[in-house]
Amino acid sequence: MLLIRGARLWAGIGRGAAAPQDLLLREGRVAAIGTRLDAPPGAAIEDGSGCLLLPGLVDAHAHIDKTLWGQPWHPHRAGPSLREKIDNERAVLRELGLSPELQSERLLRHMLARGTTHTRTHVDVGPEIGLAHFHGVRAMAERHRALMDIEIVAFPQTGVMCAPGTLDLLEQAAREGAQLIGGLDPMGMDRDPKGQLDGLFAIAARHGCGLDIHLHDRADLGAVTVEMVAERSRALGLRGKVALSHAFCLGQVEPARLEGLIELLLREDIAVMTHAPSGPTAFPPVRLLAERGVRLFSGSDGVRDTWSPLNNGDMLERAYLIAYRSGFRDDAGIELALSMCSFGGAQAMGAPGYGLAVGDRADLLLVEAETAAEAVVMHPLRRLVIKGGRVVARNGRALV
Amino acid sequence: MLLIRGARLWAGIGRGAAAPQDLLLREGRVAAIGTRLDAPPGAAIEDGSGCLLLPGLVDAHAHIDKTLWGQPWHPHRAGPSLREKIDNERAVLRELGLSPELQSERLLRHMLARGTTHTRTHVDVGPEIGLAHFHGVRAMAERHRALMDIEIVAFPQTGVMCAPGTLDLLEQAAREGAQLIGGLDPMGMDRDPKGQLDGLFAIAARHGCGLDIHLHDRADLGAVTVEMVAERSRALGLRGKVALSHAFCLGQVEPARLEGLIELLLREDIAVMTHAPSGPTAFPPVRLLAERGVRLFSGSDGVRDTWSPLNNGDMLERAYLIAYRSGFRDDAGIELALSMCSFGGAQAMGAPGYGLAVGDRADLLLVEAETAAEAVVMHPLRRLVIKGGRVVARNGRALV
Repeated sequence: MLLIRGARLWAGIGRGAAAPQDLLLREGRVAAIGTRLDAPPGAAIEDGSGCLLLPGLVDAHAHIDKTLWGQPWHPHRAGPSLREKIDNERAVLRELGLSPELQSERLLRHMLARGTTHTRTHVDVGPEIGLAHFHGVRAMAERHRALMDIEIVAFPQTGVMCAPGTLDLLEQAAREGAQLIGGLDPMGMDRDPKGQLDGLFAIAARHGCGLDIHLHDRADLGAVTVEMVAERSRALGLRGKVALSHAFCLGQVEPARLEGLIELLLREDIAVMTHAPSGPTAFPPVRLLAERGVRLFSGSDGVRDTWSPLNNGDMLERAYLIAYRSGFRDDAGIELALSMCSFGGAQAMGAPGYGLAVGDRADLLLVEAETAAEAVVMHPLRRLVIKGGRVVARNGRALV
Repeated sequence: MLLIRGARLWAGIGRGAAAPQDLLLREGRVAAIGTRLDAPPGAAIEDGSGCLLLPGLVDAHAHIDKTLWGQPWHPHRAGPSLREKIDNERAVLRELGLSPELQSERLLRHMLARGTTHTRTHVDVGPEIGLAHFHGVRAMAERHRALMDIEIVAFPQTGVMCAPGTLDLLEQAAREGAQLIGGLDPMGMDRDPKGQLDGLFAIAARHGCGLDIHLHDRADLGAVTVEMVAERSRALGLRGKVALSHAFCLGQVEPARLEGLIELLLREDIAVMTHAPSGPTAFPPVRLLAERGVRLFSGSDGVRDTWSPLNNGDMLERAYLIAYRSGFRDDAGIELALSMCSFGGAQAMGAPGYGLAVGDRADLLLVEAETAAEAVVMHPLRRLVIKGGRVVARNGRALV
């Protein structure tokens, strides 16, 4: 049992600062919230004064199997194209000979220390590595189930149709319990959008798993792909099971075209993931999509890997980057960005009992801040991270 | 005397991780650097192992007179136009009745805790407030001269020609010791670029002060202004004394036009300040300008004020935002961003003895990182901040 005294709870988007309250955690759940709760015998007590309580952060687009976290600093050397980045990654990972199980565990502890309690991670699957990364991360996830809710996407990083054998591997991963299968630029990578999407959707339909497709293809090329995804979602009855990651095209097409795409996203309840990319790339118009009712979520993307050293695995800072890149200055906008890194991701993952209400799972984050907007802007030291009612990190350091 | 043991020194852009060394500080200067220095009698010793030593950060575009720092969280409410933001600011500041002297001191302590040891701050001057902000910040700067090098720009926030009396106030500020005078969108704000620029340059020429002009005007409108600034710099012999802040236009004109502007910037040795703005606004192409030899620097801009709550006064994080918005993934790019927040700003300010070599002033920052690129990406807790050889902040808290 744990009693947190005098913390403000995030009241929800645009609701401002709430009055401080006490929060009692029991058996892994929020048992009570009140202005002055009695401490039950044996309850540990934490001082939350001057602090804000948030639900555990959700990093719902990670690549934890191939991080270089814990290794010496690795200067970035890949060329700018997708193909160059993939080839460089394969070469570096072969050379370093790192263990996906160990590397993913290293990064997971860092994520936990920064307040992430849930993650959806894409894990590479392909002819060269087979299911080795998938098995490694699955074993790690099993050992860490008390510390982090983990959802695995079997992800065809080296392409689908252009890497024969990949569809079979994705199907095998689905059989072995991958919650989702992924895709990658059906046009830009495979030059065979019909082949890739038909293949992926058939597997999803057979195994009842979800789909989370990386779509970097720009502007109209991406827009056509969104249409093709929506067609297959409808044809196979996969409404609500599909997500599009990055989907830069939503920030790049003309307003009338965008309206048509939004209609399809809503009709098929397709969720959209953006992490507010580095560089000048336009990305989905977050506020507009949210106002229209499109489900949005976010993630760190690859953290300190051969793709980029810029992502640092901090989802409160990710909310800041989304707000910064979107130009949100008002509290509602800043908190919308935060909701993509918390409630939005939890919804994408179907995480049960996620939230700050009585009865919700006690997955919580305490930071020194007056309002949620301030927490995003300052992304201060994580005072406490709590998972399943247990303190798992304090002052930025994992305790487990 | 202070001996820092076993820290890596930032070796310069793209030079990678240096071997750990000892650093002896004496009489406010770096007295010795070596692999194993003897501790002189009476020297305090700090453990720098696992850490990187950087020169103190330089926030060379701040607005410390009108921050709301230390006040309750203030949700942003201003409309999107420049005029709305200015009117909103005047109204909020009138209502809150804050003291520029006290507010600037509050923010200065936060900046110091984050490792900033030098700042150039724009301070509002105008018919409504006269020189009150200037006098307040100048008094604060005087009291804090041992903690922070401060340069003041008398800044006509409410316009120059459109706010009669402002030119006289700017001249009075120059007479009273303002190191620079500022300007603001001679076309967009005043609709009288000739009037504003002739007026500003005449004052600068009469008093020998520098010029640092806010230029938000976009694309060709901004480009013409750059040309008009360069013409006046040449005519009045002010080469090397002029800076352009924001200068979004440099990221918005066609390549051929940009080349012409670069030629002028180099001819007049005009420095360019960008803080990598929030939102979709294109900004100066940092790497290209640096390669051409244009002097670049950066700053926080307004921290937690009525303009935006997004800037948080952390210059290591500012380097990250510059790298992130520019899409820099290589160490050289990331360190270029850091140099804008350190050496570039110091050069703009003409700060004497700035650097990490023997004989330089002991203005230093120690952070847990292996390389400068890692320090930028993680912008970790500031382990130690040293000003003039004295420890002024530790673990993110100002000690003074």
